[in-house]
Amino acid sequence: MIDATSFILIMDIVGTIAFAVSGAVMAIRKGMDLFGVNILAVVTATGGGMFRDMLIGKLPPVMFRNPMYVLISAITANIVFLYFYYISLRHPKVPENAAKLYEFLLFLFDALGLGAFTVDGVYAGVKSAYSDNLFLLVVLGVMTGVGGGVLRDVLALELPFVLVRHVYASAAVAGAIVMAVMIRFGMNHNLSIFAGFAVTLTIRCLARHFRWNLPKIKGPDA
Amino acid sequence: MIDATSFILIMDIVGTIAFAVSGAVMAIRKGMDLFGVNILAVVTATGGGMFRDMLIGKLPPVMFRNPMYVLISAITANIVFLYFYYISLRHPKVPENAAKLYEFLLFLFDALGLGAFTVDGVYAGVKSAYSDNLFLLVVLGVMTGVGGGVLRDVLALELPFVLVRHVYASAAVAGAIVMAVMIRFGMNHNLSIFAGFAVTLTIRCLARHFRWNLPKIKGPDA
Amino acid sequence: MIDATSFILIMDIVGTIAFAVSGAVMAIRKGMDLFGVNILAVVTATGGGMFRDMLIGKLPPVMFRNPMYVLISAITANIVFLYFYYISLRHPKVPENAAKLYEFLLFLFDALGLGAFTVDGVYAGVKSAYSDNLFLLVVLGVMTGVGGGVLRDVLALELPFVLVRHVYASAAVAGAIVMAVMIRFGMNHNLSIFAGFAVTLTIRCLARHFRWNLPKIKGPDA
Repeated sequence: MIDATSFILIMDIVGTIAFAVSGAVMAIRKGMDLFGVNILAVVTATGGGMFRDMLIGKLPPVMFRNPMYVLISAITANIVFLYFYYISLRHPKVPENAAKLYEFLLFLFDALGLGAFTVDGVYAGVKSAYSDNLFLLVVLGVMTGVGGGVLRDVLALELPFVLVRHVYASAAVAGAIVMAVMIRFGMNHNLSIFAGFAVTLTIRCLARHFRWNLPKIKGPDA
Repeated sequence: MIDATSFILIMDIVGTIAFAVSGAVMAIRKGMDLFGVNILAVVTATGGGMFRDMLIGKLPPVMFRNPMYVLISAITANIVFLYFYYISLRHPKVPENAAKLYEFLLFLFDALGLGAFTVDGVYAGVKSAYSDNLFLLVVLGVMTGVGGGVLRDVLALELPFVLVRHVYASAAVAGAIVMAVMIRFGMNHNLSIFAGFAVTLTIRCLARHFRWNLPKIKGPDA
Repeated sequence: MIDATSFILIMDIVGTIAFAVSGAVMAIRKGMDLFGVNILAVVTATGGGMFRDMLIGKLPPVMFRNPMYVLISAITANIVFLYFYYISLRHPKVPENAAKLYEFLLFLFDALGLGAFTVDGVYAGVKSAYSDNLFLLVVLGVMTGVGGGVLRDVLALELPFVLVRHVYASAAVAGAIVMAVMIRFGMNHNLSIFAGFAVTLTIRCLARHFRWNLPKIKGPDA
C-alpha cells in the first residue's frame, strides 16, 4: 500500500503536468513562440507550489531545490507544442472550431491542476505546525490550487478564471473542506486526499456541464 | 482608554471593510457574477495584510490563521452586491451617471482602505525588530497600504491606481512619515496612528478635489 | 583589487539604475505623470531584489532596510523624466520614430538590468546554505533577473518581455549557468560574475540583432 507522502507526490506530479499543459495551451493560443510556451508552462505549473512555500515560510521553495518540477513542466510544454505543431502542419488554416478546442483543453487541464494542487496545499498545512487550524488548511489549499492559474492568466493579460468562471474557487473550497474534515476525523489520509481531489474536479465539471449560473448585475463596463 | 493594539485592530477592520467594498464595486462594474464579486473583495481586503506578513516573515500570514478577515470581506461583498442588485431591479436601465457613481465609490472606499492599511503596515514595523529604521516603517506602511488595491486592479486588468492617480502613493508616504516620526518622538501611539490615517485620507481627498496635477509627457502609446 | 561582495554591490547598482530607466521609459510611453514614472521606476528596479529576498527568506528584504535602492531609482526616474520633458518642449509634436526610440531604450536598459540582476541572484544563492545546488543557483538568478521586468510589464498591462521576446529568459539561464559553473570550479568570483553578466547581455543583444526566431503556431487569439 502506498503511503500518503508518496500519494501527495503523485498528486503533485499530476498537477504539475496538468497546469503545464494549460499554460502551454494558453501561450499557443496567444501566438507565443516556443520560448513563451515553455515559460508560461513552467510558471503555471510551479507557481502554486512556490506561493504555498512562500506562505508557510518553507524557503527556498521546493521547486528551487528540486529540478524535477521545472523539468516535468518543460518536457510537457514541448510535447504539447509538438502536438499542436504537427496538427498545424496538417491543417494550415486555423479551423473554425479551434477556439472551442483551446477553451476545452484549458478548462480540462486547469481543472485537473486545480484539484491536484488544492489537496497538495491542504496536506502542506496538515504537515505544518498549524494542522489544528481547519480554516488555515482550507485557505492554504485554495491558494495553492488557484495560484498557478492566476499567474498564468495575469501574465497572459486574461481575466483570471478564478474571477469569471462560475464555481471555480468554490470547487476548491469544497474539496479542501472535505479533505480537511476527513483527516480531522481520523480517516485514512490517502482516501481523504483522493476525496478532496475528486470533489474539486467533479464540482468544476458539473458546474460547466449544467452551466450553473449565479446572479450578476450589469455594470457600466461589463 | 483603548490601547494601541486594539486601535490598530479597529483600523484593520475599517481597512478590510473599505477595501472589500472597493473590490466588490470593481467586480460589479466589470460585470462579474456573485462569485467574482466575493473573490475580488476578499483578495483586495486581505492582499495588503498578506503581503505585509510575507515581507516581515510572519508566516503563515494572519489572514490564514484568523478567519475574521475573510469573513468580514465576504459579508461586506454580499451586502454590496445585494445593494446594487436591489438598485438594478428598480432601475433596469444602467443610468447614464452610473460610471461616475462607481468611480466615486471606488475612490472613497479605496482611500479609506489606503489610510487604514498604511498605518497598519507602519505599526507592524514598529512592533518588529526594525522599529528604529524609519525608512523601513514608511516603506512597509506604503506597501501594505497599496498592496491590496494593486492586486485588485491587476486581477481586473485595470491600470493600477498607484500608477495613474495623482498623489496616491504620495498620500500614503506622507501619512506613514507623520505616524512614524510621531512615534519616534515618543508621542501617544493612538494619536500617531490616527494622525497617519487622517493625513493619508485628507491628502488623497484634497488631491482629487483640487485636481492636483503633475507634469506629464505625451508618449507614443498614451 | 576589489572583492566580490563590492563587485556584486556595483552590479546591484548598475541593475537598479538600468531597470529604473526601463520602468521610467515604460511609464512615459504610457502617458503616466511624474508620480507614475517614479513608482514604476522604483517597482521595476527593486522588484527583482525584493522577490529574491522573499524566496530565500531574508526578511524584510534589503530594499526595506537600506534606502539606497529606492533613492537611486527615484533619482534615475526624475533624470529620465527631465530628459524627455526637455525633448518634448523642443519637439512638441511626437516624432514619427518616437515609438522606435522608446522601444530601443526599453530593450537596452532592460537587458542591462537583466544581466546585472541575474548574476546578483546567483550570488545570493552562492552565499546561502544551498550553494552546492547548481539548479537552485540558476533558478534564483533567473527569477531575480526577470522579476522586476515582469512586475513592470504586468503593472503597465503589457505582455511581459519574458513571454514574448525571443531569447529573454534563455539569456538569463545561459549567463547564470556560466557563472554558477565557473564558481563551482573554483574560478575567481569577480571573473565569474562578470562572465555571467557579459554572457546574458551578449546573448540578448545577438538575439535582437540577428532576429533569432523560434517556431510559433498560429493560435486563434494570436
